[in-house]
Amino acid sequence: MQRAAIILAAGKGTRMKSTKSKVMHKVAGRMMVDWSLALASDLGCDRQVLVVGTHSEPLLQLAKSRVGDSGVAIQDPPMGTGHAVQCAKQNLAGFEGHIVILYADTPLLPVEAVENAFRALDEGADITVLGFNAKEPGGYGRLIVGEDGSLFRIVEAKDAAPEELSVRFCNSGVMAVKSEHLFQLLDQVDNNNAKGEYYLTDIIALGRQKGLTARAVECDETDVLGVNSRSQLAEAERVFQTKTRESMMDAGVTLTDPSSVFFSFDTKIEADVEIEPNVVFGPGVTVQSGVVIRAFSHIEGASLGAGSTVGPFARLRPGAVLDDGVHIGNFVEVKNTKIGAGAKANHLAYLGDGDVGAGANIGAGTIFCNYDGYFKHRTVLGENAFIGSNSSLVAPVRVGANAMTGSGSVITEDIPDGALALGRARQVIREGWANQYHIEMKSKKQVK
Amino acid sequence: MQRAAIILAAGKGTRMKSTKSKVMHKVAGRMMVDWSLALASDLGCDRQVLVVGTHSEPLLQLAKSRVGDSGVAIQDPPMGTGHAVQCAKQNLAGFEGHIVILYADTPLLPVEAVENAFRALDEGADITVLGFNAKEPGGYGRLIVGEDGSLFRIVEAKDAAPEELSVRFCNSGVMAVKSEHLFQLLDQVDNNNAKGEYYLTDIIALGRQKGLTARAVECDETDVLGVNSRSQLAEAERVFQTKTRESMMDAGVTLTDPSSVFFSFDTKIEADVEIEPNVVFGPGVTVQSGVVIRAFSHIEGASLGAGSTVGPFARLRPGAVLDDGVHIGNFVEVKNTKIGAGAKANHLAYLGDGDVGAGANIGAGTIFCNYDGYFKHRTVLGENAFIGSNSSLVAPVRVGANAMTGSGSVITEDIPDGALALGRARQVIREGWANQYHIEMKSKKQVK
Amino acid sequence: MQRAAIILAAGKGTRMKSTKSKVMHKVAGRMMVDWSLALASDLGCDRQVLVVGTHSEPLLQLAKSRVGDSGVAIQDPPMGTGHAVQCAKQNLAGFEGHIVILYADTPLLPVEAVENAFRALDEGADITVLGFNAKEPGGYGRLIVGEDGSLFRIVEAKDAAPEELSVRFCNSGVMAVKSEHLFQLLDQVDNNNAKGEYYLTDIIALGRQKGLTARAVECDETDVLGVNSRSQLAEAERVFQTKTRESMMDAGVTLTDPSSVFFSFDTKIEADVEIEPNVVFGPGVTVQSGVVIRAFSHIEGASLGAGSTVGPFARLRPGAVLDDGVHIGNFVEVKNTKIGAGAKANHLAYLGDGDVGAGANIGAGTIFCNYDGYFKHRTVLGENAFIGSNSSLVAPVRVGANAMTGSGSVITEDIPDGALALGRARQVIREGWANQYHIEMKSKKQVK
Repeated sequence: MQRAAIILAAGKGTRMKSTKSKVMHKVAGRMMVDWSLALASDLGCDRQVLVVGTHSEPLLQLAKSRVGDSGVAIQDPPMGTGHAVQCAKQNLAGFEGHIVILYADTPLLPVEAVENAFRALDEGADITVLGFNAKEPGGYGRLIVGEDGSLFRIVEAKDAAPEELSVRFCNSGVMAVKSEHLFQLLDQVDNNNAKGEYYLTDIIALGRQKGLTARAVECDETDVLGVNSRSQLAEAERVFQTKTRESMMDAGVTLTDPSSVFFSFDTKIEADVEIEPNVVFGPGVTVQSGVVIRAFSHIEGASLGAGSTVGPFARLRPGAVLDDGVHIGNFVEVKNTKIGAGAKANHLAYLGDGDVGAGANIGAGTIFCNYDGYFKHRTVLGENAFIGSNSSLVAPVRVGANAMTGSGSVITEDIPDGALALGRARQVIREGWANQYHIEMKSKKQVK
Repeated sequence: MQRAAIILAAGKGTRMKSTKSKVMHKVAGRMMVDWSLALASDLGCDRQVLVVGTHSEPLLQLAKSRVGDSGVAIQDPPMGTGHAVQCAKQNLAGFEGHIVILYADTPLLPVEAVENAFRALDEGADITVLGFNAKEPGGYGRLIVGEDGSLFRIVEAKDAAPEELSVRFCNSGVMAVKSEHLFQLLDQVDNNNAKGEYYLTDIIALGRQKGLTARAVECDETDVLGVNSRSQLAEAERVFQTKTRESMMDAGVTLTDPSSVFFSFDTKIEADVEIEPNVVFGPGVTVQSGVVIRAFSHIEGASLGAGSTVGPFARLRPGAVLDDGVHIGNFVEVKNTKIGAGAKANHLAYLGDGDVGAGANIGAGTIFCNYDGYFKHRTVLGENAFIGSNSSLVAPVRVGANAMTGSGSVITEDIPDGALALGRARQVIREGWANQYHIEMKSKKQVK
Repeated sequence: MQRAAIILAAGKGTRMKSTKSKVMHKVAGRMMVDWSLALASDLGCDRQVLVVGTHSEPLLQLAKSRVGDSGVAIQDPPMGTGHAVQCAKQNLAGFEGHIVILYADTPLLPVEAVENAFRALDEGADITVLGFNAKEPGGYGRLIVGEDGSLFRIVEAKDAAPEELSVRFCNSGVMAVKSEHLFQLLDQVDNNNAKGEYYLTDIIALGRQKGLTARAVECDETDVLGVNSRSQLAEAERVFQTKTRESMMDAGVTLTDPSSVFFSFDTKIEADVEIEPNVVFGPGVTVQSGVVIRAFSHIEGASLGAGSTVGPFARLRPGAVLDDGVHIGNFVEVKNTKIGAGAKANHLAYLGDGDVGAGANIGAGTIFCNYDGYFKHRTVLGENAFIGSNSSLVAPVRVGANAMTGSGSVITEDIPDGALALGRARQVIREGWANQYHIEMKSKKQVK
């Protein structure tokens, strides 16, 4: 059976108080709208329609870049959820199969929950709704379910009778519907209500009038956590992090203080990695077994080879590729640089746009001078190169295998294998100068 | 109606185990005694009296610096809260109006709560007491309130009858009293009790005997959280931070992990600012819209222009003034330096006592050498100046607009606009030297 | 009465998903097996036997290094807890006194709890078992205790009758037994049970059959928290940290945010020390009164003299010894270096293998170049030495008292007292060069 997803992303999200579209805010390093697109892909939805409004040009452009012009539906003006889904009708013209309605502000919905909804369709239902048992049902719509498990109707909280209000099984808004019914039912939804809106939920009652079968499928409340404010954004982040920390530990990763380690949506860490408190993983990180990541490290777009040690106070930026047994120490930044096995840069260094040979030792204070104000250039160190402390390597430059630089040198030309390069002035001493200076300055300071 | 505040700050705070006066410890970057003085000012109290003991000379000096000699009352020896307030009698001689009694170890009391107490005076009460519904009433004094809402008396927990003990409405100690009654009632308070102390709370019963009206006004328990130990100091900090994080998010600030961002009492952040985990704001920070503050940043006394990016691992110290679109990257410290629009210092640098022109690019490892051991000097960079990596700019020095310095240069003299300055030795290469060195050292190491 | 400890460390710990033995994982900077050995020593156990399996050679070697060959018992193959203890029989041949059975995966057990168990032996019991009231008794063995307080038997959860299951007093596994009974009783334990194992707990019932007296002694559930997974490892860490933070605050240490400060098992901090958020203490740290440790500091194997200031973003490594009033600022690393009273290194520096005189001032970007690729060498600074910014001090080297180095100097030879040393090139200026460069590069960039 073919699958399609309609993703609603047209809300203004005014409670975010943001000039940026709500669904472009990030959870675990990924925009919420991308969470929902990734979910649709993971579900095998060949057709994906993003329903957006007209208030955010950046979102419109993003939507086009993600699903193409044919995948974008414009809702203008907004007239309710039913209307929003209706806007996708043209995009899905000719589609036959199962359609799921997702929300771009509900980033944490797992594949399994939606698969359960699709399965109910496979088993004969015409419409399935994802419901959750709410801790505080409050204003959520209630799912009124019969003894045979079928869904009778969805009652809005404000229209609910007292015994209905006591129901804790609530509507998440996520629905899976057979394509032959969805738009037909939506055509019959009217807007005779206080807000004058077309409600998607009305298709349940309409469907049942026509003899269709509706079912409710349960998921966790945290699965369908919707984000309407920055507090809820933080809450979604918290839920993601808590689950991810647990699953990391279950898989054999040590987190000294789980609550202070932040993962991205795609962080991959092997067993027997140890992570001290206060570590942040941006997107695109893979960590192999035996790595120790010390406190206060920030790692993004990097790959850490087996048995490497990073931090404390290390920053790995995109393109940092560490081979096995590499040491990156405190106040060291690595960007777009491949570092060979066993190489070390333990103190205060900037390694940008480079290629470091295995076994190289990069002294404290070393800078790869990679930028000339217009272009970036590469610094290449041969195997077992030894870079003296406080060296400036002015790229493009190549340091040969087993070559050395003297501390404090500015290196502007390639160094042959096995050579020493110096680029520093000879020391001169002025006897007594400092004593005289102190006398003069002390008197000056008193005068001042 | 004129207002005055008597702030009690005479307690020894022995549970703090500190040589420093308890009320000089800080919550959210401000001494507790300053919290209470700020509250008195916000309430429009023209007269402010700080009642201090004799055990802390630094507190006495601080008190004088804050409220002048005429605002300081000395309680010596301490003989109870009633006595402490009585000590302020002379300071308020001739004052007519409403007097509030505050506590310098209760930093979180909001203006609104005290305004409610003053309002009750305006509406006819002679004395109002701030009460709170305690989660665990334990040893707190209970407020015994009549059906008409008037306050009958305050019963100490140890003197309370069982039905009084079951009362959860407790005395915060904060009172507002009409000046014509306060000291008159205090004159009648005696010390016929187990501790031989004069209790402020006794004025309620004495007042009622004289036919005066007393009322209790409710506030939150966290509003009147008193600090007697380091644990309670941490608890007050926690309460402040929790509330501030919520209000920041409500106002449109993204906090990826609210629990790891620490604000000061005066932090000002506009909407659409994004703050990653682990950021500490010291006092005196303002942040404009569009700023991104990355993880592990420490910001104090700084102003961040719209759209700037800071961190990770950035330190902005007092006097760091960033214009719009500035980039301050990892392991960079900025102090007392104005940075022009769009300028960048992305890696390992110290910018102290400087003035950086718009569009300047400051290479990795650059140091503003601002201190000669006696005086601080300024480094001035013109617009679009390009400072090569690992440059030492020896202040006072001026780099012209569009001027450049070569990597690793020591700059001791001004550079004209559009010029290049070099201050580094030419590189020399000793072929084979390193190979020979490795052979010798390896043999030495084995010998050793 | 002599004491001995049998420490069970033979479990495979498969739920850890680690190639490393479970008991070699650390809590608060100390391996769990070392926690149990430290406990045994604190209890005055002259004889200590570690029972290990054959699956971890590193653990076997560690065990030998800790208790000598004679203290190591090998359990091979594992046949239950009773069998494990039995394996220690030979090691304790000839021992007479009280034997306690401890677990190397239960790191937080306090001395006092075990002392209570020993005391019960002193008072006449033959066997005492440490029990705890479990929040969720679940699968724990239940302690069935008589009205006179004596312990009748230990019932495994799966064998328990309903009224026994309702008992919340559970078996920790920790036992103290008189030596004359322990191995005799173990000889009688059989393995006629579902798992075919010899259970230590069976000695209770066997002992009572012989007329011996057994008692249960209560401890806190957190005291006997056992670690079988990385989540439980994190939980043990959390329990340790929470208790330690409270006791630090009680002793007069300010923790702005207790939850973000991490102590090691042996951290020693005096009263009136202030610690900002996000500070990590590795093992071996002592901090004297008046010290302020600012946010984002990582301190290990270091000693901080009275009134010193450290951080933010400071890293003190083993052998960092700060005298009184020292300032170590941001992005500064100190290793194996003694720093005299009042000396300062406030910005971006690496001080390794050195000796810094009192009052010395070390400029931003200074590096002690301590490593020649084979050996480490020392840098010695005299009193009040002034090291200009971005200096490279190539060790072994000595800077005299009151001597100075010019900013950006490479210092390779000793500097006499009161002298100035320069090791840098003179600045040259090429007028207009940068202007021309910008023109050329801009055109190049457009072409590109």
